[in-house]
Amino acid sequence: MTADDVRPVPASSVTSWDHEADVVIAGYGVAGAAAAVEAAHADADVLVLERTGSWGGAASMAGGFIYLGGGTPIQKACGFEDSVDNMAAFLNAAMGPGADDRRIADYCEGSVAHFDWLVECGVPFKAEFFGEPGWEPMGDQGLMYSGGENSYPFNTIATPAPRGHVPQMSDKKQGEASAGYMLMKPLVETATAAGARALYDVRVQRLVVEADGRVTGMCARQYGTDVTIRARRGVVLATGSFAYNDAMVAQYAPRIAGRPAASIEQHDGQAIRMAQALGADLAHMDATEVAIFIDPQQLVRGVLVNERGQRFVAEDTYPGRVGQLTLYHQNNTAYLIIDGDAQEEAMASLSPQLMMRPPTWVCETVAELEAEIGLAPGSLQTTIAAYNDGAARGEDPLLHKKPQWLRPVGSPVGAIDLRESTGGFTLGGLQTSLDGEVLHVDGEPIPGLFAAGRSTAGLAAWGYASGISLGDGSFYGRRAGRAAAKG
Amino acid sequence: MTADDVRPVPASSVTSWDHEADVVIAGYGVAGAAAAVEAAHADADVLVLERTGSWGGAASMAGGFIYLGGGTPIQKACGFEDSVDNMAAFLNAAMGPGADDRRIADYCEGSVAHFDWLVECGVPFKAEFFGEPGWEPMGDQGLMYSGGENSYPFNTIATPAPRGHVPQMSDKKQGEASAGYMLMKPLVETATAAGARALYDVRVQRLVVEADGRVTGMCARQYGTDVTIRARRGVVLATGSFAYNDAMVAQYAPRIAGRPAASIEQHDGQAIRMAQALGADLAHMDATEVAIFIDPQQLVRGVLVNERGQRFVAEDTYPGRVGQLTLYHQNNTAYLIIDGDAQEEAMASLSPQLMMRPPTWVCETVAELEAEIGLAPGSLQTTIAAYNDGAARGEDPLLHKKPQWLRPVGSPVGAIDLRESTGGFTLGGLQTSLDGEVLHVDGEPIPGLFAAGRSTAGLAAWGYASGISLGDGSFYGRRAGRAAAKG
Repeated sequence: MTADDVRPVPASSVTSWDHEADVVIAGYGVAGAAAAVEAAHADADVLVLERTGSWGGAASMAGGFIYLGGGTPIQKACGFEDSVDNMAAFLNAAMGPGADDRRIADYCEGSVAHFDWLVECGVPFKAEFFGEPGWEPMGDQGLMYSGGENSYPFNTIATPAPRGHVPQMSDKKQGEASAGYMLMKPLVETATAAGARALYDVRVQRLVVEADGRVTGMCARQYGTDVTIRARRGVVLATGSFAYNDAMVAQYAPRIAGRPAASIEQHDGQAIRMAQALGADLAHMDATEVAIFIDPQQLVRGVLVNERGQRFVAEDTYPGRVGQLTLYHQNNTAYLIIDGDAQEEAMASLSPQLMMRPPTWVCETVAELEAEIGLAPGSLQTTIAAYNDGAARGEDPLLHKKPQWLRPVGSPVGAIDLRESTGGFTLGGLQTSLDGEVLHVDGEPIPGLFAAGRSTAGLAAWGYASGISLGDGSFYGRRAGRAAAKG
Repeated sequence: MTADDVRPVPASSVTSWDHEADVVIAGYGVAGAAAAVEAAHADADVLVLERTGSWGGAASMAGGFIYLGGGTPIQKACGFEDSVDNMAAFLNAAMGPGADDRRIADYCEGSVAHFDWLVECGVPFKAEFFGEPGWEPMGDQGLMYSGGENSYPFNTIATPAPRGHVPQMSDKKQGEASAGYMLMKPLVETATAAGARALYDVRVQRLVVEADGRVTGMCARQYGTDVTIRARRGVVLATGSFAYNDAMVAQYAPRIAGRPAASIEQHDGQAIRMAQALGADLAHMDATEVAIFIDPQQLVRGVLVNERGQRFVAEDTYPGRVGQLTLYHQNNTAYLIIDGDAQEEAMASLSPQLMMRPPTWVCETVAELEAEIGLAPGSLQTTIAAYNDGAARGEDPLLHKKPQWLRPVGSPVGAIDLRESTGGFTLGGLQTSLDGEVLHVDGEPIPGLFAAGRSTAGLAAWGYASGISLGDGSFYGRRAGRAAAKG
């Protein structure tokens, strides 16, 4: 099978341009919108090409977390202390191994100003903290822990501070517009007010390149017709991840194969391949965000074990981290041991019940449960005995789960089968400079070519926290837009 | 920091050629030598460019394992049954996740014929099986388990058959020529006899490309001077892995950063970058071979635990697998619990003592040892109690270590600190067809460009077995040589 042709088109072969702008942006998700605002504010004529019928991308369907800290007004109003260094210490630990400390320092340094910019663009944030376990706030609270900052081991590495900033929805109800939409709408309105134009149903396909290597446009398809778009100053690639490109996932991130999630099918890696065809370098292609499909209200009240009946992560940490560790390090196999009382308590919690799961097995004793699941004789029994022993004292010497969630496992005892219960999106992509320039494998920027968002390798080298993608997408989207406007 | 310029050179700008051949091969390790033999046998005029002062590459310093099966004469003579399907079943399980079953089927199908070809080239094999735990045979035996084929879980997936074929050394002694040398010498002699020429101290730098995209030569440096080499039919890249390119390791395989091993410093990823600059695609860039620096005679007699005091792998499997699981899944942290008798027995074994390690801590009881190491109270005690309980019955219900190695841990009891005790080389690289053609990101072969060996993504997507690199390097080196000779 031959993939679509992604090879560069020599500028000399382009006889006419169907569209033209100073800065041409591919993709109208969060990175594209941020780039459009900044490029337009830098007095560039901006044209955004979006493959679907509307702006939004994966961002507008997301929970809307933007990872920000170092002392934002929301953090302060909610009574949390944070600093640039403290935020960087957390991210260097949580985004690795392999995290780029230079990029992290840069991002943390600019984080408060980035918050201010979002507010200036009209993104609303409510200064209220949500402290319950969950994938996102239950109401319209604007701040939440989103990366395990207050859980072991990160609470021993940096002072815990919540950094998941969530745009406020008016009258949040199940099924209504997402918080991600509340981020995207004001960004697109700001871009439009600044003069940025958009073309929809345009799928970018190839980069147009001068003989000297400078990128000066793109070829695309619109309604079955080829169109050419000239970029007088620069092209910004912002078409998202490669989570839905099966071949690329098999080559680069095989563990996530067959389980894309929190992503959209337009995430086909097209921008990455177009730039690779020009010699662009890549980074962190195996890294993925991973969700585990269970309600955190259950997770914190249960005891999570692997296929050997062993615990491997504090159940009260960021559930995405639980997902990553399960998929990558535990053969995508886990079981949540939860007793009747704990299950009842979780069901009675405020969680939206969407991910609440019934036990797969229920028994009177742990020994019976162990046999039902098919774990090695004695394995689960020793794990639960040790857990109960500590829990009775309010301690978890093995994994340091917080005392508030420790309670001996009683009877009846159930287990939720979490085999093959993960999904996510890819985090790797084009290697870029801190100004959003796409780097060639020789280390030099490719003239005229910029990128941001999940088509680039961003802050997360392996780990993740909710809000990193909208965070680095908007932050470096702005940088790319400004750099492209300079030409 | 800007890397060396690896951008393609337009053929039109090359005014004269310093050297010329039908097939030009970069790198005279195992893949280059195999390519040279086959290209020369196909009546091509062959020139090999080697960066160092002599042929050999990493292969000639290696233990010499070549992973072959499906019923080779050596397997048969040693009394082992194997088949193409059985070999493929093992490799599909052991080389993944993400292993390419099409490539594995192709390799297994051709494996016996490849053995015969090696013998025809003059590579000597002695039909004797080495059955002791170890990284390689103690003597000149020609066959050994080299991937955990007879250990759990693989012994439940495919019928165990040893496939590590080792060239025979005459009068093997410590410090003498390696078995890898005994592989390389006859291959290079065969290539030379068939007319292949070689140039040494030539470092390839850039590919020469026609306007239509065909690769027709290379630019290189020799003794500080630029030289141009014309390839009338094809270029074969065979310069090895990127284990010694720190920037590439940071971008693609950060877990192995700072710990290259079983590799040579010429493995700088140059061929990968030269081809990337032309739009070549990559695969499995995060995969690495990993050794753990301990003698397998100790490993099988001990109980290996992670930083939570838990067992995670049968200690009698392929030690490279133990290394991979430790580095990737256990935070590069493991401790081998071994009692006085077991340590004594290991020391008295036939192992070469090179990797034999003394206990870091020795105590009278497991409880004391647990505290000495700093493991969570009770964690190691419950692990050892469960192990001893099974061992007394000759069973290991948790990990299925073979009964012959099961014995309750007694007193005094020691622990060997295996934190940060891993190293290895990268397994990812250029995406190639089964004929060794380098594939562009659009899925089509790049005309005139071929590659093999560890500059390509081979059989191992994530897992590994000793002999895979010399195996796929020689097997697909031949394919690349033949394909290049056709032009």
